[in-house]
Amino acid sequence: MTVIRMTEKPKLNNPVLIEGLPGVGNIGRVAVGYMIAEMKAKEFAQLYSEHFFPFVMIQNEHEMHLLKNQFYYWKAKKKGQRDIIFLTGDCQSLSPQGHYEVSEKILDFVQQFGVKEIITIGGLATGEIEDKPRTLGAVTDEKVMKRYSKGNIDFNVGDKVGYIVGAAGLLAGLGKERGIDGICLLGETSGFPIVTDPKSAESVLKEMRGMLGIKLEMGRLEERVKEMEKFIKKVEELQKKALSQIAKEEKAPVKGKEQLRYIG
Amino acid sequence: MTVIRMTEKPKLNNPVLIEGLPGVGNIGRVAVGYMIAEMKAKEFAQLYSEHFFPFVMIQNEHEMHLLKNQFYYWKAKKKGQRDIIFLTGDCQSLSPQGHYEVSEKILDFVQQFGVKEIITIGGLATGEIEDKPRTLGAVTDEKVMKRYSKGNIDFNVGDKVGYIVGAAGLLAGLGKERGIDGICLLGETSGFPIVTDPKSAESVLKEMRGMLGIKLEMGRLEERVKEMEKFIKKVEELQKKALSQIAKEEKAPVKGKEQLRYIG
Amino acid sequence: MTVIRMTEKPKLNNPVLIEGLPGVGNIGRVAVGYMIAEMKAKEFAQLYSEHFFPFVMIQNEHEMHLLKNQFYYWKAKKKGQRDIIFLTGDCQSLSPQGHYEVSEKILDFVQQFGVKEIITIGGLATGEIEDKPRTLGAVTDEKVMKRYSKGNIDFNVGDKVGYIVGAAGLLAGLGKERGIDGICLLGETSGFPIVTDPKSAESVLKEMRGMLGIKLEMGRLEERVKEMEKFIKKVEELQKKALSQIAKEEKAPVKGKEQLRYIG
Amino acid sequence: MTVIRMTEKPKLNNPVLIEGLPGVGNIGRVAVGYMIAEMKAKEFAQLYSEHFFPFVMIQNEHEMHLLKNQFYYWKAKKKGQRDIIFLTGDCQSLSPQGHYEVSEKILDFVQQFGVKEIITIGGLATGEIEDKPRTLGAVTDEKVMKRYSKGNIDFNVGDKVGYIVGAAGLLAGLGKERGIDGICLLGETSGFPIVTDPKSAESVLKEMRGMLGIKLEMGRLEERVKEMEKFIKKVEELQKKALSQIAKEEKAPVKGKEQLRYIG
Repeated sequence: MTVIRMTEKPKLNNPVLIEGLPGVGNIGRVAVGYMIAEMKAKEFAQLYSEHFFPFVMIQNEHEMHLLKNQFYYWKAKKKGQRDIIFLTGDCQSLSPQGHYEVSEKILDFVQQFGVKEIITIGGLATGEIEDKPRTLGAVTDEKVMKRYSKGNIDFNVGDKVGYIVGAAGLLAGLGKERGIDGICLLGETSGFPIVTDPKSAESVLKEMRGMLGIKLEMGRLEERVKEMEKFIKKVEELQKKALSQIAKEEKAPVKGKEQLRYIG
Repeated sequence: MTVIRMTEKPKLNNPVLIEGLPGVGNIGRVAVGYMIAEMKAKEFAQLYSEHFFPFVMIQNEHEMHLLKNQFYYWKAKKKGQRDIIFLTGDCQSLSPQGHYEVSEKILDFVQQFGVKEIITIGGLATGEIEDKPRTLGAVTDEKVMKRYSKGNIDFNVGDKVGYIVGAAGLLAGLGKERGIDGICLLGETSGFPIVTDPKSAESVLKEMRGMLGIKLEMGRLEERVKEMEKFIKKVEELQKKALSQIAKEEKAPVKGKEQLRYIG
Repeated sequence: MTVIRMTEKPKLNNPVLIEGLPGVGNIGRVAVGYMIAEMKAKEFAQLYSEHFFPFVMIQNEHEMHLLKNQFYYWKAKKKGQRDIIFLTGDCQSLSPQGHYEVSEKILDFVQQFGVKEIITIGGLATGEIEDKPRTLGAVTDEKVMKRYSKGNIDFNVGDKVGYIVGAAGLLAGLGKERGIDGICLLGETSGFPIVTDPKSAESVLKEMRGMLGIKLEMGRLEERVKEMEKFIKKVEELQKKALSQIAKEEKAPVKGKEQLRYIG
Repeated sequence: MTVIRMTEKPKLNNPVLIEGLPGVGNIGRVAVGYMIAEMKAKEFAQLYSEHFFPFVMIQNEHEMHLLKNQFYYWKAKKKGQRDIIFLTGDCQSLSPQGHYEVSEKILDFVQQFGVKEIITIGGLATGEIEDKPRTLGAVTDEKVMKRYSKGNIDFNVGDKVGYIVGAAGLLAGLGKERGIDGICLLGETSGFPIVTDPKSAESVLKEMRGMLGIKLEMGRLEERVKEMEKFIKKVEELQKKALSQIAKEEKAPVKGKEQLRYIG
């Protein structure tokens, strides 16, 4: 049960999908959140899934809502720009299989709009504080690398990174099997238990500007990140609490002195 | 495999679904159990699921029965009242996905009777003994809050509660996606390992009276709760035993001195 | 994926299903195994399932075979007897859901032969060495108890036993939902980590004689149990080994001194 | 979701399936990898599955690709040889059920090419350094053993090996149910945490030569194994890292001093 509910059906011309879901340093979540806000992209679909945590969150004092991923669109304003579908949201899947199932659903959904290219965004934990975090890139195909060779993306990523977990990896990998081009941008970040790393997100956003032919002022980044951070932090803490609650329930010892009488 | 078996098909007029399944302090289980008994609601359907514990319980000395959730109905007696479907039962799902799947099945089922509003009941563990436990409320929509603003429900719930796990949350959250209004009532309770908290359930029941336009004497609550408690306690203990038995089996070390010879 | 492969389609007249799969003290496995051997019941179907351990066993020096459950039939020889379908096998499900799914498949299968009654056999771990182990009984319905009230089954089982896990419980419980009568016979056994408890199995077999109107000499029980024990013990040990192997793989720490660089 | 994508549809005559996936000592992976390289077998299909790890790997500096199993074919060159389908790949399933589901998919796939015999290859961990590792064999049927009795396979395997886990076991076991002959070759290996054991693989390859009527020079084995080892080691380490990362996330304690307030 993974459901995508469309609240508006936009007409899009050869759109690129840009994904930024929660992960290490929340680079993707923050970068895509900032683009959505600054570019005034419009929400048009929501995804919820049995692979997410089984709870509702409470926002705005008393409003319950399911954990969700959201789709936004943005239409090209001038030559050299492309239509964009943004994907962001509260969480990723709980279980390994869930990652595959949700990613396949997302690909089915965006292909109906003609998506032929996917940009995913993640963080690369280096274990060190990075003064000038770089943006690394992995691609599904040599030709995608060439397409973006003008920027400052470091494509010598293979010896620093072995694998990319979750949506950032699978959307590109499963997309490749469907003939969709994919590139994953990874912002270097310490990986320490921090909530978000705006500096690293900024490095990725600067690359995005060139890749998409868009203007994007960075002046409001810190401020916007602070706004987002509250919410992101809340979701993270709720998930940890819920996980430890579930774990506790599962480990609860049998109380009482009753004799052990079980049956097989 | 989640099955709902209907033993009677009642004709209901715009019924509200009221859910109270086992949880913290068993507030929902006790409150709904009391209403069913006092209002003489009639059982008309049972749900069982592969997401429940894989055992039968033994009741009445020697009778086996599957773990179940049950549906009861009650028809409005006079103006200002509504038809009601009550949902209660032995347990909730074992696995995260199970919560989603069972909740969806329940929604499919009650929608055929025209349910357009859901009231779920849960407990809020405060970590303290509450002398005068309050009833908090979360809603799917501002207009639901207004509908119930005459009572004493505390809708400033957002800073005390971050999320609502399981059926109490998901029935409301998934219902919202279907256009169903939802409100979750949370009775404050210590959260200490007690079986049931009648005081907290009473606080919720008092709100329910106003919300449903029904009379409900509280005189028999303690007595009824004692009756219910025996059964609820039994199920809880059985589940813990079964869980620890399963865990033990999974952790059982290899005995004997045979040489370790394994194959891949 | 749970498959039942039929190698012969017997014509049966109102058969009773008798289940004895591995469990506490292997009472059911041993009792049913003995009946099959002594009564010369004939194997006619095999069940295998993705819910069993993912390995093949090696028997007869070099022969691989899947873990299986097996169905045998026996046709009534004279008045007062009934046709019987026996169910036994190597193992039960690994996961909670698996128990439900496999039990439902078994019920679908046996209903095509007209099964309207199920006898399941299990062990009740008392935590004590039982000199004269009793046979306890739980039923789906009062009338089933009356049917078997002539024997020495102790139906005051409710305060000694709270629940019955796995196939012995679920076949009866899920069968009840289909209108099938069920009785579960539980042989008292210590529950200590012994492989099989022939004494307890004998107590159950003596009851079975009366219930089924059959002769069954007990003289070969010890001998047959010794034969069976070797195989049962082997399966138990293999499962434990496989479990600990799986657990070990899952817990294997990352070796090497490489810097931790992960991505989300 | 287990998908097999065919990039070429070869015409094969009564082909034998030879499986070698990662496992103890990677005997199967290495032996089949060597045959593919030396015999210049041609890749014609890829399998990916939700039962694999949810990540993409990065190869050739910056290229992402899904975890996969691959199918290769080789056509008989002269009399006494058979057409062959080789199966190898990055990994096996994460979960027990996954093993069954993926194996069934593989059998469905190869049966369309007329496969009636399967040779699987695995390692047998003996716990000791083996100077002259033997090749042991288990079969689905006596007649398969006779077919291969001319070589040096030790078919007295039953007292050394109890079970065969994963694809090497299940492909043979599930194939048997479909009327496919199967033999599993097990190369003795220490089982110590080494990456690959070329010596053991060589012992298996020598048997394969006779079984398949092929020439296979062993001169390049060490060299080829070194090439393969790098990649195999990388996948192993990535899986361990990913596993420990997942485990860590699941165990992450709740930080902060907030009061524990949870809801049921």
